[in-house]
Amino acid sequence: MTTESTMGDGAPGRTPGRPRSERAEQAIIEATIDLLAEESGVAGVTIEAVAARAGVGKTTIYRRWPNKEALIVGALATLKGPLPEPPGRSVREDLLVLGEALAAERHAKHGRCFFNVLGGAEKHPELYARYRQDVIEPRREVMRRVLRRGVERGELRPDLDVEVVMTLLVGPFAMRGPREALAPGFVESAVDTLLRGIARSGG
Amino acid sequence: MTTESTMGDGAPGRTPGRPRSERAEQAIIEATIDLLAEESGVAGVTIEAVAARAGVGKTTIYRRWPNKEALIVGALATLKGPLPEPPGRSVREDLLVLGEALAAERHAKHGRCFFNVLGGAEKHPELYARYRQDVIEPRREVMRRVLRRGVERGELRPDLDVEVVMTLLVGPFAMRGPREALAPGFVESAVDTLLRGIARSGG
Repeated sequence: MTTESTMGDGAPGRTPGRPRSERAEQAIIEATIDLLAEESGVAGVTIEAVAARAGVGKTTIYRRWPNKEALIVGALATLKGPLPEPPGRSVREDLLVLGEALAAERHAKHGRCFFNVLGGAEKHPELYARYRQDVIEPRREVMRRVLRRGVERGELRPDLDVEVVMTLLVGPFAMRGPREALAPGFVESAVDTLLRGIARSGG
Repeated sequence: MTTESTMGDGAPGRTPGRPRSERAEQAIIEATIDLLAEESGVAGVTIEAVAARAGVGKTTIYRRWPNKEALIVGALATLKGPLPEPPGRSVREDLLVLGEALAAERHAKHGRCFFNVLGGAEKHPELYARYRQDVIEPRREVMRRVLRRGVERGELRPDLDVEVVMTLLVGPFAMRGPREALAPGFVESAVDTLLRGIARSGG
């Protein structure tokens, strides 16, 4: 994507202003992530604090995000983007692609943001619900499609509990502290263990 | 266990004092958990704040825990106690026992404590390392024994990567927000999916 193409939908006369508003948006997102990663978590993210840290006015923030919850969910969405759409040639290849994508997301500062939101789920139920809906659900949908396609093609067991399998697939990456490195070959080992099972008979 | 037996090792003359010190210890642990579950997490737990909340003097705390880190790890250990030692008749039964124990631990306030410690892992590396060593490792050792016994008895695949299997076993319980209830039959479904695998051929 060229620089031009990212500004292609702006009116000709407004082109100079567009990059500045993009820079402001970027600064606001970064300030939100920085504050969210700090120990006070969700409580430390206020429109005032974000504006001060990003060097913008509060109205610049409100022009784009109606409230603090929308801003936080928007920032989390930039950290946990959509999962890659796997090639679809085989379930094993697709699961390896998804596993590698999940493993690549293990960034310490980002981990703190998500733990802080999970830890505050009781206190901020609307924020948490919106995070699940806007950020997590689209990712789960990619996994669901891979698993359903595997069942349709006869690669996976026909009676698969897709929701349970998704927790087994994501769990190994989600459960660890951000400081713990994954062993080499971890993703392949996890995917193959899930595919063939741990029982000796194999079912 | 009778009340007598819990005080059995006290000298006769000190019996009246023992319950009071136990009550103080309980109040200190509860105050630590309450503070740790709040939004400021680890940062909000200070010896001063715990003493005030528990209604004890700071020296009462220091008599039992040398510093804040030891106090927090001690409090976490009361929330995540040892896993039950499974009966050992079959791997499937043992994994169901462990799975049910993990599912039963999903308490919202406790979840916040652990998310707050995980979120602060970078900032408090010693606390996190001690938590891993004192609280998590003994639990992992119970799971490891179950899996190794299954391999020795020929119930599980001989080439099992035990560390990977443990992440698959624990993941489904660790990855969710504390507000999300588990579906009925979730534990059995997760254990059976792990045992037999998701691939149609079964390996």
